[in-house]
Amino acid sequence: MKILAVNAGSSTLKWKLFNMPSAKVIAKGQIERIGLDGAIETTEFAEKKITEQIQSDNHQEAVTRLLELLREYHIVEQLDEIKGVGHRFVNGGTVFSKSVVVNDEVLAKMEKLKVLAPLHNPANIMAIRAFKEVLPEALSVAVFDTGFHHTMPEENVIYSIPYEYYKKYHVQKFGAHGISYRFVFNRLLELTSKKKAKTNTILMHLGSGASICAVKDGRSIDTSMGFSPVSGITMQTRSGDVDPSLLIYLENQLGVSSTRVLDILNKESGILGISGISPDMREVFAQKETNHRADLAVKIFINRIVKYIGSYAAELGRVDSLVFTGGIGENVPFIRRMVCAQLGIFGVKLNEECNENAIAVEQKISSIDSAVEVWTIPTNEELMIAEDVYNLENN
Amino acid sequence: MKILAVNAGSSTLKWKLFNMPSAKVIAKGQIERIGLDGAIETTEFAEKKITEQIQSDNHQEAVTRLLELLREYHIVEQLDEIKGVGHRFVNGGTVFSKSVVVNDEVLAKMEKLKVLAPLHNPANIMAIRAFKEVLPEALSVAVFDTGFHHTMPEENVIYSIPYEYYKKYHVQKFGAHGISYRFVFNRLLELTSKKKAKTNTILMHLGSGASICAVKDGRSIDTSMGFSPVSGITMQTRSGDVDPSLLIYLENQLGVSSTRVLDILNKESGILGISGISPDMREVFAQKETNHRADLAVKIFINRIVKYIGSYAAELGRVDSLVFTGGIGENVPFIRRMVCAQLGIFGVKLNEECNENAIAVEQKISSIDSAVEVWTIPTNEELMIAEDVYNLENN
Repeated sequence: MKILAVNAGSSTLKWKLFNMPSAKVIAKGQIERIGLDGAIETTEFAEKKITEQIQSDNHQEAVTRLLELLREYHIVEQLDEIKGVGHRFVNGGTVFSKSVVVNDEVLAKMEKLKVLAPLHNPANIMAIRAFKEVLPEALSVAVFDTGFHHTMPEENVIYSIPYEYYKKYHVQKFGAHGISYRFVFNRLLELTSKKKAKTNTILMHLGSGASICAVKDGRSIDTSMGFSPVSGITMQTRSGDVDPSLLIYLENQLGVSSTRVLDILNKESGILGISGISPDMREVFAQKETNHRADLAVKIFINRIVKYIGSYAAELGRVDSLVFTGGIGENVPFIRRMVCAQLGIFGVKLNEECNENAIAVEQKISSIDSAVEVWTIPTNEELMIAEDVYNLENN
Repeated sequence: MKILAVNAGSSTLKWKLFNMPSAKVIAKGQIERIGLDGAIETTEFAEKKITEQIQSDNHQEAVTRLLELLREYHIVEQLDEIKGVGHRFVNGGTVFSKSVVVNDEVLAKMEKLKVLAPLHNPANIMAIRAFKEVLPEALSVAVFDTGFHHTMPEENVIYSIPYEYYKKYHVQKFGAHGISYRFVFNRLLELTSKKKAKTNTILMHLGSGASICAVKDGRSIDTSMGFSPVSGITMQTRSGDVDPSLLIYLENQLGVSSTRVLDILNKESGILGISGISPDMREVFAQKETNHRADLAVKIFINRIVKYIGSYAAELGRVDSLVFTGGIGENVPFIRRMVCAQLGIFGVKLNEECNENAIAVEQKISSIDSAVEVWTIPTNEELMIAEDVYNLENN
């Protein structure tokens, strides 16, 4: 059964076509710069990689083009071979805790959630509508990045602000990276034969966006991203946590709107803002011996991760496992080494050799005498989405 | 030698007159509602407490009145008995790390710091000027609430925002409660004969404002308040940490200015905002069995403290002592009990009986087999100020 996993951003459409349940990737690709001048289409299949300049004025056109190219390259012969399309949906609010088949009622509820993730949810909805239009027979499924965090207790969900804003305006912690966390946590259980109900785990998704999640007995109880994806640890271009007064102070000092300040916190901050060099941790790290700001950026990135781990360790009361995932978590051993070096208080000990060699593989990287098992596990959000579609298809 | 310790707020003037170096309190009092309709003067001395309605249109008038009442009640016979006046100064920016004798040059520097603490610094400056005017012979000393935190490493001081805002606009973590932390930490060393250079301590100042501080080898390395006193843990009416996006979202939802939203975060949030009952922890706690929001407020207050302790424990690598101070830290055993109950991962064990009985006293409250010594130590910011004045007077 062919299932398409789709991740739509405001100007991108990433996709991966799976054969399920074997989980074999038949093809994958992306259309970038949708709605901009000159979109770029990249398609990978059967060890080929094809890049083309195309015109794609909106998500509807991008979806039409995607289905066209699938036939053009004979990835599928008939569109009805695609039995299901799963969509990553960024913020499901308090409404959606689990993956759902999208019908008109669900779409109506999604429309109401636009305001909670104005950069992402509208793009997700556009993509869902476009696929339903051109593939009306395929099962349309939404998989929520916030769903995994629906188990957080209320005291970790609400901010210390007037309670009516929580009830009336849904101001609360939603978190993110839930699809990734669910995938990685399931893999951890399979790899270690740990029992879900008896393990305390701290998961770190360190990619261009980055967050940390405390999992107790299989349930997310806390996570570093909050109402929006700007908060938590230091990211590539996002600030993570800042003093709220700082927004208004900068508004006044820079003479710009609060919206512009938030834009700076989202796009010009983090590793890029501190270092002034690049949002890419490896590029910044390479200059840390000679450039003070590069050194600072690395120190801050590590420091904020270590502090969140400490706070979640206290909250969990006992930590059995730490898991690194995401682009940095999977591929950058020195970051894992620097983080773990500061976790001595919890009895964390790395197997240095294992760690250095573990790049883009599932690997236990702690030493035998470590009080906490440390793993690196590559995430696979698209497969998680395809699995949810497959399971709903067979329900 | 008589020394006056002064704490000026925007509409208050609190004072305490010490005989130094014996540290005997001769008299204390406050003038409230300065500049408002009908100020209130409270004076305590020789076991008397006198409250009067007065007129006091500004800090100059309040200071004049204070010196008048000192003679009226024969607390002093001649004003020149007062050899020094020490002022609590809220935000000394990056300029002042230690207490200083205030001269014109210092005042000019202080003027430039107004923007960093617009609610507090201008009142501090007004009070300093007023006292210099009426007591020109007394030594005028400023003691900075931020000074203790000047030892924080740069990676804990700066936010993950463009670095130029740190250099150009002084956007950084300043912290607060430094006078209290310095006093309490010195007392801890005296009480335990611990060596300053070999002790890792987490100090908690839990009052109406509240913060937490990590002290390594006698130096503050991190603290929960940041650029302003609104961030960090949940306070009586202040929100502590929130997602920065939430400000702009609330601006739009409520249709108010960003300044108004910040005002809500400062004055209508925290324990008051969550519970809807009161900013007072004891009143809220009393209703927690029957009122969901009261229960939530207590849980959140504890949770945020526990998480900061966890993060600082990770940062310190080893914790030798925990110290509770401030109104709640000194006087509310159940809060200390609930916090410590969640610190099992660090080997914290309370002596329950000691804890329950320790109200407004210096007391070790951990059990003999606790891995971390836990203390409650009443703070005395005014005495710390008077001591600084005395030491500068005798330099």
